[in-house]
Amino acid sequence: MGLDTVKTPFGRVQDSLGGSATYFSYAASFFSPVKLVAVVGEDFPREHVDLLARRGIDLKGLQRLPGRTFRWSGSYEFDLNEARTLATELNVFESFRPQIPPALQETPFVFLANIDPELQLDVLKQARQPRLVACDTMNLWIKIKPAKLREVLERVHIFILNDGEARQLTGQSSLIKAGRTLLKWGPSIVVIKKGEHGAFLLTEGRFFAVPAFPLEEVYDPTGAGDCFAGGFFGSLVRDGGSLEETALRRAVVFGTVMASFNVEKFSLERLKTLTDAEIFSRYRQFIQMTHFEDSDMRETAPR
Amino acid sequence: MGLDTVKTPFGRVQDSLGGSATYFSYAASFFSPVKLVAVVGEDFPREHVDLLARRGIDLKGLQRLPGRTFRWSGSYEFDLNEARTLATELNVFESFRPQIPPALQETPFVFLANIDPELQLDVLKQARQPRLVACDTMNLWIKIKPAKLREVLERVHIFILNDGEARQLTGQSSLIKAGRTLLKWGPSIVVIKKGEHGAFLLTEGRFFAVPAFPLEEVYDPTGAGDCFAGGFFGSLVRDGGSLEETALRRAVVFGTVMASFNVEKFSLERLKTLTDAEIFSRYRQFIQMTHFEDSDMRETAPR
Repeated sequence: MGLDTVKTPFGRVQDSLGGSATYFSYAASFFSPVKLVAVVGEDFPREHVDLLARRGIDLKGLQRLPGRTFRWSGSYEFDLNEARTLATELNVFESFRPQIPPALQETPFVFLANIDPELQLDVLKQARQPRLVACDTMNLWIKIKPAKLREVLERVHIFILNDGEARQLTGQSSLIKAGRTLLKWGPSIVVIKKGEHGAFLLTEGRFFAVPAFPLEEVYDPTGAGDCFAGGFFGSLVRDGGSLEETALRRAVVFGTVMASFNVEKFSLERLKTLTDAEIFSRYRQFIQMTHFEDSDMRETAPR
Repeated sequence: MGLDTVKTPFGRVQDSLGGSATYFSYAASFFSPVKLVAVVGEDFPREHVDLLARRGIDLKGLQRLPGRTFRWSGSYEFDLNEARTLATELNVFESFRPQIPPALQETPFVFLANIDPELQLDVLKQARQPRLVACDTMNLWIKIKPAKLREVLERVHIFILNDGEARQLTGQSSLIKAGRTLLKWGPSIVVIKKGEHGAFLLTEGRFFAVPAFPLEEVYDPTGAGDCFAGGFFGSLVRDGGSLEETALRRAVVFGTVMASFNVEKFSLERLKTLTDAEIFSRYRQFIQMTHFEDSDMRETAPR
């Protein structure tokens, strides 16, 4: 969890609520119970904690440590796909060693949000026989801790990352090749997010691709990938953790939908007012906008 | 029609068969009869003409003029989405004024491939009451002849262009906004191609988006957009020129499929060996890879 200062062509926010665990948890909470493990500093506003609590997110794993909260500052140019990091202050993250409360160690579903892969491993070791584990990562860890990241990948079922990260981690320019390489490193499911260009899911022998939900304006892409992951993993958990094809495809679509809402405003402003009815309506709309099935196939074969 | 010298990270070809009319016609010929109107110079190899003739393309509108054939030279870097033009020699195009043979003036379906909008208008004026007209364009004409291009747009039903062109022409960074702006300028259907990121079709009140067909390697993107247009328009014509939703969506999928084959080799090398069975097989595969329909919708509503 962190406090973000973000500038886009449409405005600027300072020390607003952010962090991958925040976005992930909030988005996932629309689909299944969420138990958050994270750290904040003494300066972290109480209202942000209350916001998560109001969504029913279990906060027993949220530690408040002496010092300042993690801060990230970034800007987006006209092309909103790529963030430029202006500053990162680790603050309380520097000494953070996550302690999973006993009540949370039994959870069958674990999502390791973007953080130092050593901490991801720490968390995973404290989980007793999780049934389904997914993780995300980012360019920083790919660069400075690739070996630890590979250790994480050996222990997860699902790896969710963006296109640039997939290319950086594998050295493959083709995203399909990058995805296949990642499948060999551990996860049986790889989901590659492509920002405004959609996402695809790859397993051994199976492939599912979606475009992004079409929006006239994107105000702030911060957290979109985490909301995708929250909708995706939340939906899988809601379906009992099934990895069968329909559940996976449904999860990709709910991930897409959650990301599309999040980018409509800064920070969690859009998610704060989001309703189940809005999510479901956009879900149906998305299916309608991408659906094609040739009911009369023989006739349409090229001559 | 032209002769292309193309360099990609995977190789180089010199004076190979190219040109938007060539790619479009060849791709469209798998779906419906094609009557080509184009110009070449005295140096244009006979074998290229024979190649088109063997696909049953009507060449009565192909003129051979004194002088050299149009030549384009370009290169693609690691990111294969954007061509860098190294040289363009108009040659016989400098004085070309297309004359549509009387036998071709009655055609109900007209596609105006990427060329000077003045020539597109010339061609259109010679067509007697076409039922369905589509066009493409490129950055050069947007820059140097925007007013003429707007005249063309007032007279076409379908405008097919790529993402960069849509942004350049409308000054809108949002592709959805760009598409809506273009709809106001004349065409009732706008198709925006996004290279490796797929394509979408926009009409007043309707939207259909597809990802690109997933390929491990793209050898040469030259002509992909023209092949998309050929598959798209060919499919529409094959369906009798219907603009109803299923026909439009089918056309987008066939366009996607034709583009995906073309990028697998340089020039028209892949299309030369392409069979109807391969097209249909990939068409079905693409539908399978993008298909999602929540048959049990009530159950999957977020809690």
